[in-house]
Amino acid sequence: MNKIVVLYDSRSGNTKKMAKLVCDGALSLSETDVRFLSVSEASAEDILWCDGIAAGSPTYIGLVSADMKVFWERIIKKTWGKIDGKIGCAFSSSGGRGGGAEIVCQSITTIMLNFGMLVFGITDYTGPGQTLHYGAIASGQPAEGAESDACVRLGRRLAEWVAFFCHGKKEAYPLIQEYKKK
Amino acid sequence: MNKIVVLYDSRSGNTKKMAKLVCDGALSLSETDVRFLSVSEASAEDILWCDGIAAGSPTYIGLVSADMKVFWERIIKKTWGKIDGKIGCAFSSSGGRGGGAEIVCQSITTIMLNFGMLVFGITDYTGPGQTLHYGAIASGQPAEGAESDACVRLGRRLAEWVAFFCHGKKEAYPLIQEYKKK
Amino acid sequence: MNKIVVLYDSRSGNTKKMAKLVCDGALSLSETDVRFLSVSEASAEDILWCDGIAAGSPTYIGLVSADMKVFWERIIKKTWGKIDGKIGCAFSSSGGRGGGAEIVCQSITTIMLNFGMLVFGITDYTGPGQTLHYGAIASGQPAEGAESDACVRLGRRLAEWVAFFCHGKKEAYPLIQEYKKK
Amino acid sequence: MNKIVVLYDSRSGNTKKMAKLVCDGALSLSETDVRFLSVSEASAEDILWCDGIAAGSPTYIGLVSADMKVFWERIIKKTWGKIDGKIGCAFSSSGGRGGGAEIVCQSITTIMLNFGMLVFGITDYTGPGQTLHYGAIASGQPAEGAESDACVRLGRRLAEWVAFFCHGKKEAYPLIQEYKKK
Repeated sequence: MNKIVVLYDSRSGNTKKMAKLVCDGALSLSETDVRFLSVSEASAEDILWCDGIAAGSPTYIGLVSADMKVFWERIIKKTWGKIDGKIGCAFSSSGGRGGGAEIVCQSITTIMLNFGMLVFGITDYTGPGQTLHYGAIASGQPAEGAESDACVRLGRRLAEWVAFFCHGKKEAYPLIQEYKKK
Repeated sequence: MNKIVVLYDSRSGNTKKMAKLVCDGALSLSETDVRFLSVSEASAEDILWCDGIAAGSPTYIGLVSADMKVFWERIIKKTWGKIDGKIGCAFSSSGGRGGGAEIVCQSITTIMLNFGMLVFGITDYTGPGQTLHYGAIASGQPAEGAESDACVRLGRRLAEWVAFFCHGKKEAYPLIQEYKKK
Repeated sequence: MNKIVVLYDSRSGNTKKMAKLVCDGALSLSETDVRFLSVSEASAEDILWCDGIAAGSPTYIGLVSADMKVFWERIIKKTWGKIDGKIGCAFSSSGGRGGGAEIVCQSITTIMLNFGMLVFGITDYTGPGQTLHYGAIASGQPAEGAESDACVRLGRRLAEWVAFFCHGKKEAYPLIQEYKKK
Repeated sequence: MNKIVVLYDSRSGNTKKMAKLVCDGALSLSETDVRFLSVSEASAEDILWCDGIAAGSPTYIGLVSADMKVFWERIIKKTWGKIDGKIGCAFSSSGGRGGGAEIVCQSITTIMLNFGMLVFGITDYTGPGQTLHYGAIASGQPAEGAESDACVRLGRRLAEWVAFFCHGKKEAYPLIQEYKKK
């Protein structure tokens, strides 16, 4: 079973909408179990349980939100040194393009690297002019189409890598998936 | 006279279009002289001459292009230690949203910090859902409206900071400019 | 009068020691007034008062500490859009070399760019094998010699740029300072 | 067989010394084959061949060297979209502490994310005051002891993750390795 945590912080609800789409993507791969948790709900046990984590934060002043930072810095700090090798990725909703969503994704993956995790980017385009090389981003709530699809793709890819790397499912390898042809 | 270099690397022409808009913005402030130069045209003399530099690169694999890097690493390396205190900012055109344009802007300002320059971000929104907190970004060529306006604003702001900080023009202070009301 | 805020977050005391050295550096320039404040002491009024801010955070999981983030995200959020053009720089103490102190400095300057500030790097070496291109860093408490000198230099440079840029003191220009000869 | 490429750019020889230590580390795990290649020697075939890549660049102006960038941007550009899921990590030698080696490691992993690779950080300390959370760093040539050990550890960890993730060797999992007790 691919065990995924979709972890989010959200105030306006935009990042939570992204998180739900990430869940949908992860669940689209068979034999996948997802825990959908805000930073106030998730515990060290959830993080220890999972194979992979997709973490999303609103773009607050160009970095991961303070609440998301508190989660890693205090709430699950005791898992540091115990979760090396879990697989991670990031997503963020900003107030506008050029507002730092990519840089927030980078700050989330920086945290994950510190914990010894493996993080990934995605080469795919989910539509003309929309990709997710460093994680899925949205301006405000995820727009229907390519922006929402990027969130779905992120969750799907996380599940695929978990299946492929953690559970030896060679058939989950993304480059042989149908959607790559887009 | 506010002396500005707008420096760019461009293959498809998209970043060059952004650069032209950045020029327009800089020239919209009176008493401003702009040198519009590609990385193959600009020289150490240009960099020593100016008060401020707006540098733009296509988003190539999430970082400043190799040609732009060569410019700083080799062509003007001898200016290192001589241009401390010049004012800088960045812009980039990527293949798609989420493709790394913000991270490229960050890589350009990182280079500038290394040279002892001062770099700035911009708080303004140039339209709903478009800002330029870490530099101006575009997906492909700069779209008319908010995306192009962000390029213009970047050049204007650079000229304003140069006028304000380097030439003591208190009236150039951006927060008292009309467009801030948007 | 050059008005400087040295802002810090510190639990072990290491970053606070760096902050004191940054203060010393700033005060070494005449006509400089420094407010030395932890993130729990500083207020929006302090930030509005000053010309320049040196902000230091411990290296917690590769990013600015949650407490420092809270300061910018909540405590002084209302100053956003009002402090454009203030001058900033960063410092950080990490548990070890390679532990992320440079990346924390980058995260602090990212926050400052978001607020429309100008941030700077420093080209100087304060001793063999020690520089502060992106801010001053220390592993643990700042060691005597080059590491402590880097903190002092950071504060001095901030005061110099404030004097030069904000108060028109041409004689404060760093490249004509004695210590550059080292 | 764990297939590793240790890729480096080096002018002074410092980064090459790091690269050799990374090789030593990788080869310390049984059933590991390493190709030790400069950016002028490596080809697309090497990149397609391997399971994992450790890439090292000198710290030139706070970013990956132009020659390393050229390698990814031009020489192996045609592998883009074909190497998703390979495992990567970074190392860098800078002129001095605080000179950007961590930020260069970040720029290398940014490139790797763009290619769809998985990159990792390392939680271990290889001695008091020396870690490699974002890759191995050195100031000048890698000093004997903790700094050199960090390079060795990086190569070893890459081989371990490749064995564990790509070849199903559960016994390679780093957290059960002897050296973790340090």
